[in-house]
Order: sequence, then structure tokens, then C-alpha cells
Amino acid sequence: MAKEVEAAEPGAFSAKDYHDPPPAPLIDPAELTQWSFYRAVIAEFIATLLFLYITVLTVIGYKSQVDPLKAGTNECDGVGILGIAWAFGGMIFILVYCTAGISGGHINPAVTLGLFLARKVSLIRALLYMVAQCAGAICGVGLVKAFQSAYYVRYGGGANMVAHGYTKGTAVGAEIIGTFVLVYTVFSATDPKRNARDSHVPVLAPLPIGFAVFMVHLATIPITGTGINPARSFGAAVIYNHEKAWDHHWIFWVGPFAGAIAAAIYHQFILRAAAIKALGSFRSNA
Amino acid sequence: MAKEVEAAEPGAFSAKDYHDPPPAPLIDPAELTQWSFYRAVIAEFIATLLFLYITVLTVIGYKSQVDPLKAGTNECDGVGILGIAWAFGGMIFILVYCTAGISGGHINPAVTLGLFLARKVSLIRALLYMVAQCAGAICGVGLVKAFQSAYYVRYGGGANMVAHGYTKGTAVGAEIIGTFVLVYTVFSATDPKRNARDSHVPVLAPLPIGFAVFMVHLATIPITGTGINPARSFGAAVIYNHEKAWDHHWIFWVGPFAGAIAAAIYHQFILRAAAIKALGSFRSNA
Amino acid sequence: MAKEVEAAEPGAFSAKDYHDPPPAPLIDPAELTQWSFYRAVIAEFIATLLFLYITVLTVIGYKSQVDPLKAGTNECDGVGILGIAWAFGGMIFILVYCTAGISGGHINPAVTLGLFLARKVSLIRALLYMVAQCAGAICGVGLVKAFQSAYYVRYGGGANMVAHGYTKGTAVGAEIIGTFVLVYTVFSATDPKRNARDSHVPVLAPLPIGFAVFMVHLATIPITGTGINPARSFGAAVIYNHEKAWDHHWIFWVGPFAGAIAAAIYHQFILRAAAIKALGSFRSNA
Amino acid sequence: MAKEVEAAEPGAFSAKDYHDPPPAPLIDPAELTQWSFYRAVIAEFIATLLFLYITVLTVIGYKSQVDPLKAGTNECDGVGILGIAWAFGGMIFILVYCTAGISGGHINPAVTLGLFLARKVSLIRALLYMVAQCAGAICGVGLVKAFQSAYYVRYGGGANMVAHGYTKGTAVGAEIIGTFVLVYTVFSATDPKRNARDSHVPVLAPLPIGFAVFMVHLATIPITGTGINPARSFGAAVIYNHEKAWDHHWIFWVGPFAGAIAAAIYHQFILRAAAIKALGSFRSNA
Repeated sequence: MAKEVEAAEPGAFSAKDYHDPPPAPLIDPAELTQWSFYRAVIAEFIATLLFLYITVLTVIGYKSQVDPLKAGTNECDGVGILGIAWAFGGMIFILVYCTAGISGGHINPAVTLGLFLARKVSLIRALLYMVAQCAGAICGVGLVKAFQSAYYVRYGGGANMVAHGYTKGTAVGAEIIGTFVLVYTVFSATDPKRNARDSHVPVLAPLPIGFAVFMVHLATIPITGTGINPARSFGAAVIYNHEKAWDHHWIFWVGPFAGAIAAAIYHQFILRAAAIKALGSFRSNA
Repeated sequence: MAKEVEAAEPGAFSAKDYHDPPPAPLIDPAELTQWSFYRAVIAEFIATLLFLYITVLTVIGYKSQVDPLKAGTNECDGVGILGIAWAFGGMIFILVYCTAGISGGHINPAVTLGLFLARKVSLIRALLYMVAQCAGAICGVGLVKAFQSAYYVRYGGGANMVAHGYTKGTAVGAEIIGTFVLVYTVFSATDPKRNARDSHVPVLAPLPIGFAVFMVHLATIPITGTGINPARSFGAAVIYNHEKAWDHHWIFWVGPFAGAIAAAIYHQFILRAAAIKALGSFRSNA
Repeated sequence: MAKEVEAAEPGAFSAKDYHDPPPAPLIDPAELTQWSFYRAVIAEFIATLLFLYITVLTVIGYKSQVDPLKAGTNECDGVGILGIAWAFGGMIFILVYCTAGISGGHINPAVTLGLFLARKVSLIRALLYMVAQCAGAICGVGLVKAFQSAYYVRYGGGANMVAHGYTKGTAVGAEIIGTFVLVYTVFSATDPKRNARDSHVPVLAPLPIGFAVFMVHLATIPITGTGINPARSFGAAVIYNHEKAWDHHWIFWVGPFAGAIAAAIYHQFILRAAAIKALGSFRSNA
Repeated sequence: MAKEVEAAEPGAFSAKDYHDPPPAPLIDPAELTQWSFYRAVIAEFIATLLFLYITVLTVIGYKSQVDPLKAGTNECDGVGILGIAWAFGGMIFILVYCTAGISGGHINPAVTLGLFLARKVSLIRALLYMVAQCAGAICGVGLVKAFQSAYYVRYGGGANMVAHGYTKGTAVGAEIIGTFVLVYTVFSATDPKRNARDSHVPVLAPLPIGFAVFMVHLATIPITGTGINPARSFGAAVIYNHEKAWDHHWIFWVGPFAGAIAAAIYHQFILRAAAIKALGSFRSNA
């Protein structure tokens, strides 16, 4: 609906025009000498730790409350699958809000890959973020196990696995499209064209990004438990450490990375290339 | 509550006054030479595909989890009808957020009709958007069927039908008022008068638009499953392809289109005509 | 948390200072000659109609889905009381968003009373708004009854009554505090001091106002079904028209009006008088 | 994601730079002569009263609706634990929104402690806020008991206790991390660096702060009922006044205060010290 707005204020167009920032270098040695770089890596670690801690605790708590074998439980107690989906989406909302100004608020290797492909972060930053995210996820799930080890093992440890009745191909497909929804939203929220037009977008962006995670969980919890975040799946697999979780584990790297690549291609080649061409046709008419 | 604000800053009034953009032409040949036009059509296609994929997957997943004939299910499992309503409303929130700057973020032929009647899009754009939306919806539901064909057929395919105990007249009425709520919210969010006053509204608009969809689903899922989007109903009917879905299908075009026309009349003749007259009376007093 | 911000930018203080708008006259004859006045009354009518239509339809639909006497129902189907609370809060969010620039977005006689006491609307406007709200509520509930009259009567018609096990005194108290929460939020959102500081607040205000309604419904649906809006209670009582609903009906005018008066006193005498005194002490120090 | 924005607008950097406000004095006698100080204490009292009233009423109402020993109840009725988590998070959202401009919107002694440690409020203000918060909490829970004393006692009075099957150590850990999530979000929202960049953040901040409370409740209601707010736990303990609630009561002061201290250290030493160092390295390069 922004189209009409632009049309309504043509005079403001050139003043508000935007410039693409130059692509981030693959390797940026200067980055390594700045505390802000290490601070960003720490922030990704802490954010992913808190993400996994809250969400896996919600999953385990829910399952313990509705266990029909446990005395005194009520099948309808617990926050429900809707509550679990809120936990994942809501945590991404607040953590992206908190870390956006520090690290960019990735908290997910698939998001980092997408932004690396769009040349918004350097290779070295992308790799260190992914390591920090995976380490944070392991610590977060580890805390949940430390707090309630009996329940943790009994209720599946929050690990991502292909549910009974679905094929691995379906699971990969669900992970690809789910991650596409997330990374497409991230690109839309951080598009410099949008930023130039509405300087407060980076502040508002965490809400739709969190909702994208919420939506994908509503749809695909019955299929895979919903990964769309390799660090989340890896942390749960390491701590749960059961054979089936490891057997299916490749799905939760291949699917999200393929989805992130697809979203990057869609955004850069269809939506942004289009922007440049449209600008070209605009100029040739002028 | 904005009334008091205007009263508090009368000096800023003339500076912030607004001009209606000229009405979009019925047929705009220049549009067809610009990549931004085709890009918008592609964005509508992809957004409607993702909308149907996530929402119908949520519907089918929910029904498979609470099926009393399936071993190991719990009547209270699943995201619930509340979760389904969130899926529809939340997806519209994020997809309008993502595509607003590209295509205007319609994702619904009834919204496109309303904005065409208000002369905000050309006829040719409106028709191509509707084709793209219907094609996207078919592909989105098709993906769900491909991923879980047994469940898809067993649980009704997400198709809109009049529920047992309700007449077709009630269903048409429910679709008309539901679409009125949605298109009225869209008009309120994209009113150029509001934009002139608050330049960040287009960024905030997706949230109330998504909530309007959420609200209507809470109220009318028991009656029709809630259409208020002919592309959504058409995509599900094509892939499910059962006689009853086709028999009722006209309701999900007539109702939403009638609701969109009613909202356009209410906005243009009562609310906006009023704006012009009020401005007239304001000037004659000055 | 805004306190620290002010401290950080003392230079901007005088530039951003605010002036209270003059109090609205009790009777403003000029108002009656402007189309914008009648347009506002129409907008209140339509908004209250849509509010009652969606919310009462949600209540009736929920009760029909979980009725244990009906074949094929599942006790856990339906949107739940959480969904009903969302319907009331979410509709207020979108309707305040849509009508804020037209009528101020009251949709509730208690809100109108509060803003009249704060001298933000004239007496004649307040009375006409209340009439429009009550008429809209009757039409909205009437539509629900027309759509599903058998269910409507069987499931209590969405009327507000004191639940078994609670006294009328408790019900009045619950209505007073609930309306206090709502009208306090409305005053906070429309405070001209806040508006001067953050010009986009009127656009954001609908969300906390809607959440206030959502919260109060979570807490008091078990006690009275939650009124906090005399038009809502009146519309349901007129259409349902049972003796018990009328016997208890005074509670849903006395409680909300007392709560609105309390909120107006708290805001004007404690919070705003304070603002003036604080400004006085600030000047005497300078 | 704000990183790219900064990079895109380097020219705006110095103009938008920020200055840390000077630390608040430990004891500020001038503060005590201003009405705005007492007004802030009153606002904290009222806000905490409303917070406890709505949330504990929701808890008690939910438990009375799903009580299997009560005739006519349905195990699935009630707002659910998800609804309870919404009540806590949603109330914090609206109350922080309403009181941010008056008192800073703490409503929680742990938040007050965190902001005191960051030297954003004086010692005397911090102490008076905590007293007001505890008194408000007692009054809020007292109102709930007055309204429904039979249900109040039968359903546990909303008091925080360690649930069966969890150790006290786990409960302390859960309170520490939960409060860390909340206070970390508060620091992120009120960081003057962010405020300088985006002047409307204080208006948006209540939403992520409310969501942080919502998320922590989803995760830790099964463990302790979720405190993360000593005033909330204290008010419920005073009114419920059972031995077990008092035996466990220290957990709900030690845990939240330790979590707030950890968040203050993380923010001031890792994230902000980093900011200063990064600025240093930036200047030495220039």
C-alpha cells in the first residue's frame, strides 16, 4: 500500500532516495580489531541461549502437564501447541528487538547465510555468528536438561524429528518453504530502500519477523516439530543425543539453508533487480 | 482520538494538508512497459502461494492431531481453532508487510476490487493481480496436498463450505460483513489523509489489517470456514475438487465482492465525501 | 522510561513543549452545521455494529461447538474463552484504528463519558455518540440473531449477567475496575503531553487500548461475561430480552460509568494536576 | 539489523550521536520537593495494584472453570495457561505504556533494582518505588480475595510456590534466567543510544517488554508459577498467607534480584563498555 504514498508525494522522491550500501567484503581484517565485533558474537551467543532455554522449557513443560500417564494431569492443561508456537515466535521478536543494534539480530544460521549471500555481512562474521549460535543453543538446551532431566528425556528433549506418517522428502520441503517465509520477511524488513523511506522500520521489523516464526510453527509442528533454524535443531540434538534425532539431523541443515538461498535469490534477482530496472525505465522516461 | 491532536496543532494544518492522488487510469499502457509492474504481479503470486500453504497446512495438521479415530491423539492437542484464526491473520500481517512496497500487498481479489473501485489501481493491474492471486492459491494448496495427500483428502482440504445448520443466505451475509470489516480496515489504513498526517502509517498498517482477518475468522469459521478471499476459496476448491465445495463456491465470490463494494461505497461516499464537505464548511467559516 | 529520554535532550524541551487544547464547550452550535459531526456519529454507529456482530457471533459459535448435547462436538473444539477475549480486544484495536481520525474512536459510552468529563468532547456530541453506539449495538446483535436464531437463544445471546456464585456487589466492583483499566489506558494514549513528544502516538494508541479490553475480558468473563461497555450490554439485552438480563442490566451502566469517572479523576487530578505543579516547581528552580 | 542502516547513512552519524545522561545521584534532595516524584510513586502503586488484580483474578477464574469436582465444568473451559501467560504479559504491556511518561513504568522491584544499578534512578526513588509496588500488589490481590474469597483460598491464591517434582535450586535458576530475559529487554528498550537513533522507541518499548513477561510465563509456570517480580510474589504471599508460600518466598526475591544484577552487568560491561570502546577504535581510525 506504500505505492500510493509515493505517488502522492512525488516531490519528496529524490530527497528520500536511497543508496545501496557497498557489499560487505568477504574478509574484513579491520573488523577483527574492534570490540563491537566480539560484542556482536557474544550477543548472538546469549540470544540463542535464551531462545532455546525458554522455548525448549515450554515444550517440555507442556508435555509434562498433559501426560495421561501422570496422576493429576488434565489433558487440556498446558499452554498447548499454540503456546509453543507463541514461545518460538515471541522469543524471536524480543531477541531481534534486543540484539538488532548490537549484532543485527540473526539468532539463526539460516538468516546469517541469507544475509551473507546478500553481501550484508562478511564471511568471517557469518562463520563466527554460526559458531556462536550453535554454542548458545547447546548451552540453552543444556540448562533445560539440568533443570529437569527426568522430564527432559521422557518428553523428547525438544529435538526435531520427522513425525510418523511423513516422508523425509516432505520434511525437507516443509523446512525449505518455512525458512523461505522467515528469510523473505527478514529481507523485506531490512531492505535499504524501505529504510530510506521509513527510518523507523528497523525498530518495527522484529514484530513481523517474530510473527513469521510463529506462523511457520503453527503449520509445521505436526510434521517436523519445526526447525527453520539449524542452531536450534543442533543444540537439541547434541543434548538429547538419541539416534533418531541424529539420523534426521541433516534435514534441519539442508532444508533451512536451501530455503535461505531461495529467499536470497527471490529478493535479489526478482524484487531488487526489478527495483534497479524500474529506476532505469523511470529515468529514460524523464 | 486524532481529533484532539489536530485541534492542538492548528498551525500545522495547512503545512500538513494532503492532496488526493489522481485516480488511476482504467488502462495505463505505460505500466505494461515497466518491470515494477511484472514484479508486483510475481509478488502477489508468491505471497498468495505462501498464504495458502501455511494456512491450509495448519488446518490439516490441526484436524489430524485431534482425530478421535486415530490412535494416540488427544482431543486437546493441536493448535485449536484459535490457532487457525491466528494463522490466517498472522500470515496476512507478514505478507502485507513484505509486499506493501512491491505490489501494495493485496493478496486477495476482494481487496483488489475495493482498491480498483476507489481508483487506486488500474483495471489491467486489478485483473492481472486477481489471476496471479488465484494461481498462487492453487499452487499453495497443491503443495499441501503433495506433502500429505492422505490427510489432505480426509480432513476436507481446507475448502470453504456452508456448515451443517446454516443456510446459504446466512453464509453469504457472513461473507459480506466479514469482507466489509477487512476492506474497511484496508481503506482506513491507506487513506491519503491519514498518510499525510502520519507518514509512518503504511508501515504500521499491516498489523490492523492482519488483525481484521484474525477477528473475522474467530467469528465465522463455524459458519463457512471463513472465505473473505475468493482466491483462497478458489485455490482450495480446485485442489480438493469435491462436488459440495463447487456447489457452494459462488458464495465465496459473490459475498466477498459484495462486501468489498459496500466498504468502498461507505469509505468514498460517507467518510471521504464527508471529508471534502467538512473542508468546504471549514473554509466558508474562515 | 521516557523520563531518561527527556533528561538526555534538555535542549529540545521548550521546542517540544505542549499546550493543552482549550476545553470543548458544553454545547457547540457550530459543530451541528458540519458534515464531519454527522459523519462521526455514523462512524460510531457502524463501528459499534461491527464490534457486537463479530464478538457475539464468536461467543455463540464457541458455545455451539463445545455443546456436549450436540452430536459430533468435541469439548475442546471452538476458539475457547481465550479466543472470545481476543475477539473483544482485537475488534476494539482495529475499530479504534479505523475510526480514530473520524470520530475519535470511542465505540463505548463509558469512554465517551470519560472524555466528556475531561472536556475533550462537547455534551451534545457525547449524547449523540452514546445514542449511536447503543443503536449500533442493537443492530449488531440483531444481525447475529438473524443469522442463527436457534443457537442465539440457546446459548444465552451474549448477554451480560452475574454468574452463579458471585454477588451483585462483586459484579459492580469488577465492572468499575475493569472500566478503570480501559479508560485509564485511553487517557494515557490521548494525553496531549504525550502527543507533543511523540507525534505518532495516536496511530499506535489503538493497540494498548485493544489490549486493555482483552486483559479485562480474560479476568472477568467468569464473573459477568465482562461488560465495561454499556452499549455492548444494552444491545445484547435488547435482542436477548430475557428477564434475568434486564434484572442485572443496571450493573452494566453503573459500573462502567463509575469506573470511567474514577479514571477521569485519577488522570486529571493526580496525574495532570501533578504535571502542572511539576512544571511550576521546574520554573521556580530556573 | 540496524547495523546496515547506520552504514547506509554515515553522514547522519555525528548529528544523531548521543550522550549518556549523567548518572542519577544516590540521594537527590531536590527530587523530594517535586510533585512529579510523589505522582510517580502513586502511579507505581496504582499500576501494580491493577497488575495483580487482573492477573490473579485470571488465575483464580481459570481454576474455578476447569475444576473437575465442580458440577457443570468442562476440562477445556477457561482461558488456559496460555491465557494466564497473556494476562501477565499483556498487563505489563499496557501498564508500561500508561506509566512510562509518569514513573518510568517499572511495576517490578527487580526492574527498579536493575535501573538503580545502572544509575538511572536515585536510591531514594528506588526504595520508594519498591514500597509502592509491594503495597499495590497487596491491595490488588486483596481485592481479588474480597471479590471471591471461597474460590481464592481453594485455588491457591495465585501464590508462587515451587511445584512438585522440582528442586528449590531449579526454581531459583528459573527465576534468575527469567528475570534476566525481562531486565535485558528493559535495558535494550531504554538504551539512550537507541533512543537517539529512533526517537519513538520509548513508545514502542512496552510491547517487547510485555512479550518478555509473556514468554517467561509460558516457560516457567509449570516450575514456580513464575515470579520474576518480587512485588507480585509478595502481594500474593501476604494475602494467601499459607506456610508453604512463605517457606518458598525467599526464592522470589533472591532469584529476581540476582537476575536483574546479571542483566545490569551484561548490559553495562559487555554491551555498553563495548560501545564506548568501539567508539574509541572508530575515532583512532579517523
